[in-house]
Amino acid sequence: MGLEDSGYIGLALEILTNAGVKIGDIITVINSDHKYSGILMPRASIGSDPNHIVVKLDNGYNIGICLSSDTIIERDMRVTGERTPSVVSLETNPELPTVSILSTGGTIASKVDYQTGAVNPALSAQDLYDTIPELQDYANISAQIVMSKLSENISPSDWTKIAKRVATHIRDGVDGVVVAHGTDTLGYTGAALSFALQNLPVPVAFVGSQRSSDRPSSDAALNLIRATDFVGRSNIAEVLIVMHGETDDSFAFAHRAVRTRKCHTSRRDAFQSINSSPLFKINEDSFMELSSPLYRRDLGRKLKVKANFEEKVTLVKIHPGLRPSLIDYLVSEGYRGIVLEGSGLGHASKKLQESLSSAVDSGLLVAMTSQCINGRVNMNVYRSGVELLERGVIPCEDMIAETALVKMMWLLGNTKKLEKAKDLMTTNLVGEIGLRSEYKEYHYSLEGGVVE
Amino acid sequence: MGLEDSGYIGLALEILTNAGVKIGDIITVINSDHKYSGILMPRASIGSDPNHIVVKLDNGYNIGICLSSDTIIERDMRVTGERTPSVVSLETNPELPTVSILSTGGTIASKVDYQTGAVNPALSAQDLYDTIPELQDYANISAQIVMSKLSENISPSDWTKIAKRVATHIRDGVDGVVVAHGTDTLGYTGAALSFALQNLPVPVAFVGSQRSSDRPSSDAALNLIRATDFVGRSNIAEVLIVMHGETDDSFAFAHRAVRTRKCHTSRRDAFQSINSSPLFKINEDSFMELSSPLYRRDLGRKLKVKANFEEKVTLVKIHPGLRPSLIDYLVSEGYRGIVLEGSGLGHASKKLQESLSSAVDSGLLVAMTSQCINGRVNMNVYRSGVELLERGVIPCEDMIAETALVKMMWLLGNTKKLEKAKDLMTTNLVGEIGLRSEYKEYHYSLEGGVVE
Repeated sequence: MGLEDSGYIGLALEILTNAGVKIGDIITVINSDHKYSGILMPRASIGSDPNHIVVKLDNGYNIGICLSSDTIIERDMRVTGERTPSVVSLETNPELPTVSILSTGGTIASKVDYQTGAVNPALSAQDLYDTIPELQDYANISAQIVMSKLSENISPSDWTKIAKRVATHIRDGVDGVVVAHGTDTLGYTGAALSFALQNLPVPVAFVGSQRSSDRPSSDAALNLIRATDFVGRSNIAEVLIVMHGETDDSFAFAHRAVRTRKCHTSRRDAFQSINSSPLFKINEDSFMELSSPLYRRDLGRKLKVKANFEEKVTLVKIHPGLRPSLIDYLVSEGYRGIVLEGSGLGHASKKLQESLSSAVDSGLLVAMTSQCINGRVNMNVYRSGVELLERGVIPCEDMIAETALVKMMWLLGNTKKLEKAKDLMTTNLVGEIGLRSEYKEYHYSLEGGVVE
Repeated sequence: MGLEDSGYIGLALEILTNAGVKIGDIITVINSDHKYSGILMPRASIGSDPNHIVVKLDNGYNIGICLSSDTIIERDMRVTGERTPSVVSLETNPELPTVSILSTGGTIASKVDYQTGAVNPALSAQDLYDTIPELQDYANISAQIVMSKLSENISPSDWTKIAKRVATHIRDGVDGVVVAHGTDTLGYTGAALSFALQNLPVPVAFVGSQRSSDRPSSDAALNLIRATDFVGRSNIAEVLIVMHGETDDSFAFAHRAVRTRKCHTSRRDAFQSINSSPLFKINEDSFMELSSPLYRRDLGRKLKVKANFEEKVTLVKIHPGLRPSLIDYLVSEGYRGIVLEGSGLGHASKKLQESLSSAVDSGLLVAMTSQCINGRVNMNVYRSGVELLERGVIPCEDMIAETALVKMMWLLGNTKKLEKAKDLMTTNLVGEIGLRSEYKEYHYSLEGGVVE
């Protein structure tokens, strides 16, 4: 491909043009104090800056190189515009565990095709080895593309597909499954599979990346490597989210998926366990258990799949001025459940009480979480809470709103018995609800880590 | 009042009954190692435990005393069931600033009437001195009740009333105003007054309490004292939220109201500045400036009040499975604006694009914030964001969703010009939007306080 569609602008485009190179060429970049050699990559994200170029080094990593007007770029004549895939062994190593990596799309699964410059959410085993050759040190990989969607477009029916595909791989006898997924709704899908995959014999880890793989700061490699290593060897059998533990490329956390939300738009350590600690700290050479897993690896355990989700369930965040007619509308449209993000300990304006009461009387499940994010709903403290309880609103304890929504969709998708669904909403099934006394940690602003 | 309606249960009720005392009596409590004397208070909150009684000590504080079966309770015969208000001077001290304390209700403004046992949101100057005698060391107080509502019941029309009342006190020449308010929607009301009160000459501090004043752990006294001291003497003139800085009774933070949300259901340090640092740390004897105020105290500045809020604006949190028909419904009902809490950098499923586009075309303001809470919306990175921008969705930068909602209500309440309202949504007016490079702090899970 030519440079005009490569995403380069300004100084970078000028220097590259003058050097007569094109995307895919092997180039040498000479700055005042450094010299780099590798394959010239396109810029995949929109609005890239004019001062950096991206080069794929021999070790498989992409780096961003800052240009100045003095930078010299030379084309390596050995290969001219031809792709040179690294030759890797795809033979099975009997010493290593077997791990399936399933791709659903998102930034982490994107691969820049440097012939066309397009970002393709494609992830074959060869692609993976090509991009992250270290993976072969940790496991024998079987990689498959389940779908290619940005995660904001993933729907509850996609959760069903992903759950069934993961189940197939588990039944084939792999030691663990990694699901590559966009970060936007990674927590929701992780929660969905936590409920859908019952009696898990091996771990399933969701993994994403906050920075695309053509950026020097991409977290894709570390997250994939740590997740692959962890599901291959660890002694846990739960649905996890494995993401950067801090901004450096130092370690990852394995969070329990039903407890986890994306808490920052861009940071690499955006994912946090809420009202609980992460389960494991995953270092390069060790796994540190931070909290007790509910289920340990047990290859004899027989997986059950219950992967139906009722889509007529929605989340309503309570706010001053919220109109009761919105609740009435949901009832009249035949919704089967509403998860409220109430204020404080689980409150809503008394103006909403009558409509919420009607919703319950009409056979909807109505459940209460808190928009505070951290802490536990307690509707027994103030009259506002007591009155909602009396009207049949279900208190979700310390379950996060996103998980409560997924859980309600799952319950209503798998049982016709409303009372049973109501009971199960407040029953801890897979670690989504904690004991009242279990955990006091709180994500604290300045000093941080204050424990009550 | 008798004991039967006092909130006491179990062991506490039994021991009190046997001692023949009633609420309001001066009693002496003798435990194995301590002896306490004070007025027997009722338990105000529902579901109180059976093992504690609450006694108001001579210094005005309420304490909880743990009972055992060996505890002896004696009635002091000097006063039998008569209320004995402490005698305080209400004379003006010319050395001290003048501060208005306006009460809107909520836990902080609740006062247990120990004749009736009821919790009354009443806060006269006498009540204040009675409960927190130290206040007179910090300011000459003028106290008024504006309304008596739990904050979950406060509506946008209440914001207008509160803003106008605060303005009256400022025009009367006070050195600062404290507004006591329930914590549930304190952030929303604080944001509303931030926009409504323009050209503030003096500071306005919202203050709440997370624990009711009959609990030994109540934060009401510290928050009120620190807020009163701060608005009386500090050199700032913004709308603030003053709440506990940590769980101990050590210091408070003054947060910029438009940046602040309640981030925990029950902790005393639940309020946090998001995407910014608090403005001041308020110690007992010093104010430490943590971030530059936008406006300094200036008694010559002439206050302007623009306190209209459009109520047909709502907040929609995007989630997998959210149905486009919900957006269509809001348009058909004549809503004038929608604030979205999108996923990640400000995304929504492509299934929603057509409905969102129709909403914009129908003359609604549609704005995007992020459900991540922390970080900045950036709709230029991925196609999902770019397409929403192209359809007229307004990116709210690093403004929190709650403030974006209040701001949109305020803009649509004060101008008929849609383009002007749209422009102002992305214009920083009172510190609600930060510069792109300004702040990298993030509320981090385990180690805490990691700065990128």
